[in-house]
Amino acid sequence: MKREDRILLAHGGGGKLTRELIEELFLPFFKNPILSELGDSAVLEFENLKLAFTTDSYTVDPIFFPGGDIGSLSIYGTVNDLAMMGATPLYISVSLIIEEGFPIEQLERITRSMKEACSKAGVEVVTGDTKVVGKGMADKIYITTAGIGIIPANVSLSLRNIREGDLVIINGPIGEHGIAILMMREGITLEGDIKSDSQPLNHIVGEMVKIEGIKAMRDLTRGGLGAVLCEIASATGLAIQIEEEEIPIKHEVLSACEILGLDPLYVANEGKFIAIVSPESGEEVLRVMREREEGKDSRIIGRIEKQPKGKVVLRTKIGGSRIVEMPIGEELPRIC
Amino acid sequence: MKREDRILLAHGGGGKLTRELIEELFLPFFKNPILSELGDSAVLEFENLKLAFTTDSYTVDPIFFPGGDIGSLSIYGTVNDLAMMGATPLYISVSLIIEEGFPIEQLERITRSMKEACSKAGVEVVTGDTKVVGKGMADKIYITTAGIGIIPANVSLSLRNIREGDLVIINGPIGEHGIAILMMREGITLEGDIKSDSQPLNHIVGEMVKIEGIKAMRDLTRGGLGAVLCEIASATGLAIQIEEEEIPIKHEVLSACEILGLDPLYVANEGKFIAIVSPESGEEVLRVMREREEGKDSRIIGRIEKQPKGKVVLRTKIGGSRIVEMPIGEELPRIC
Repeated sequence: MKREDRILLAHGGGGKLTRELIEELFLPFFKNPILSELGDSAVLEFENLKLAFTTDSYTVDPIFFPGGDIGSLSIYGTVNDLAMMGATPLYISVSLIIEEGFPIEQLERITRSMKEACSKAGVEVVTGDTKVVGKGMADKIYITTAGIGIIPANVSLSLRNIREGDLVIINGPIGEHGIAILMMREGITLEGDIKSDSQPLNHIVGEMVKIEGIKAMRDLTRGGLGAVLCEIASATGLAIQIEEEEIPIKHEVLSACEILGLDPLYVANEGKFIAIVSPESGEEVLRVMREREEGKDSRIIGRIEKQPKGKVVLRTKIGGSRIVEMPIGEELPRIC
Repeated sequence: MKREDRILLAHGGGGKLTRELIEELFLPFFKNPILSELGDSAVLEFENLKLAFTTDSYTVDPIFFPGGDIGSLSIYGTVNDLAMMGATPLYISVSLIIEEGFPIEQLERITRSMKEACSKAGVEVVTGDTKVVGKGMADKIYITTAGIGIIPANVSLSLRNIREGDLVIINGPIGEHGIAILMMREGITLEGDIKSDSQPLNHIVGEMVKIEGIKAMRDLTRGGLGAVLCEIASATGLAIQIEEEEIPIKHEVLSACEILGLDPLYVANEGKFIAIVSPESGEEVLRVMREREEGKDSRIIGRIEKQPKGKVVLRTKIGGSRIVEMPIGEELPRIC
């Protein structure tokens, strides 16, 4: 925090600077055992009831993009953060900050899209707020959702469960959301049809958590697969070895990344996650994941090792290996 | 909705246009029994557990003002929305949208203020998110909080409980928050020291709900006492008669309103609420409220009548009476 005295775009990027802001500014003030877990959702324990609780603000630009819009994104993003704790998402709050002059027709389109996303995910909007700010005080519309889900009594996902030998499973190809947004923003057209992968993950997770041996899950949003792996390695003090060859990525996304000079490892997804599972349960988890559309391309991409402590090692296709570093900040602001 | 095709500042003002937006756009899409209650919080029923859940975005300008700042406001506002359902607030989520270049020193000041507000209210921040948008894409910082509280098993506050003869009790003088903000924004200085009344109401409410006979409560934020009374009259189909002489208001606030051409009935508060209580419980409720600092100026200001249906009637000091109309929209955008 001492190095910067003003907020940079990278402070919101889900990388090192975001982490510093949380660890050096927010955590010291708000320190409590629930927050300190820093999971995708907080876990709240009531008598006989375990709830997941999470929030996210959505500031994506453009607000309509191939594969979704800020409305559906704001529902799925929060649903997925609940799902990553093994929760069944139930209730959503929606708070809008709208720029004066925003077309009501577009607001209606966004609202309809939120409603459809809620139906698909099986959640309900139960409370909300609307604020309007003057022209030039926001960029069209920002949406903040919070969500509540129930965690089944026998489910307890946490990075603390992770052990050497555990497997890293991904549910499908990476990089689509970030590339779809960026191409639209930059007005680039390429062959192939790159759409955001924005989708609800709670149904596939609901099937997965019935299997024993699932240790933790994380969705691969800001900072992409790379940032999430680094976070897990750093939090557990264990190493993660990843096989580049096993990481699913579509040809069009790879081409776009090459043209744009981006490493797909760090590009945001909105419908992808990794599960860390015990070696014994790997086959069963894969089988269950592949039965659903959102998991049909599931793959084991790596495993947990002891060394090098707290690091992520990528074994490249040509047989070399390199350390995957935590990104400083998202290269692409307002991606979600 | 047909009359306007773009969002106006007044759509966020808590008056008629906000109501139209909710009733004509959001409710048709999201229709469900919990949302349709339109209380200050949603009431979620789990087995053996009743929770209140609410959210609000805070876009107040200026972000630091006499009596508070956007940080404390964002905690107390959400705490109070939970309290109005009789809930004990417990957990808060915080989502920040920060403009690039915002001074980290100010972010620290706001975070400290949130922490102090949490301590005062007895709640904890358990989850959060930070987004950064480019320069000119937000005005400094916007904060969205959501909150969860437990509603005691025997408490069930709802406008549906209200009957003819019930009393309307207020916990203190009106108009301070709105006037403090407006004077600072306009650079006006008057004799006297008008500070925002921003404060947590959960402690006083916690004492009140032990008494039988409390029907419903509402905090007097956007749109002020006037908008809230109109909303209650309209929702219940009953009439509310208010005695102007009984409405507490500080001399300085009244002078400021006269100078600024504002009706104090519609000016926002951040630490004031009304309780609708049975005639039998009135004295006891007043006694309990007056025991606490935040209720020391509590007064009975009116009662529920049968006629004129759905209307609010103000009996003026000089003995006349006038209908209090729902404001179209807040005269003062970005007041909270």
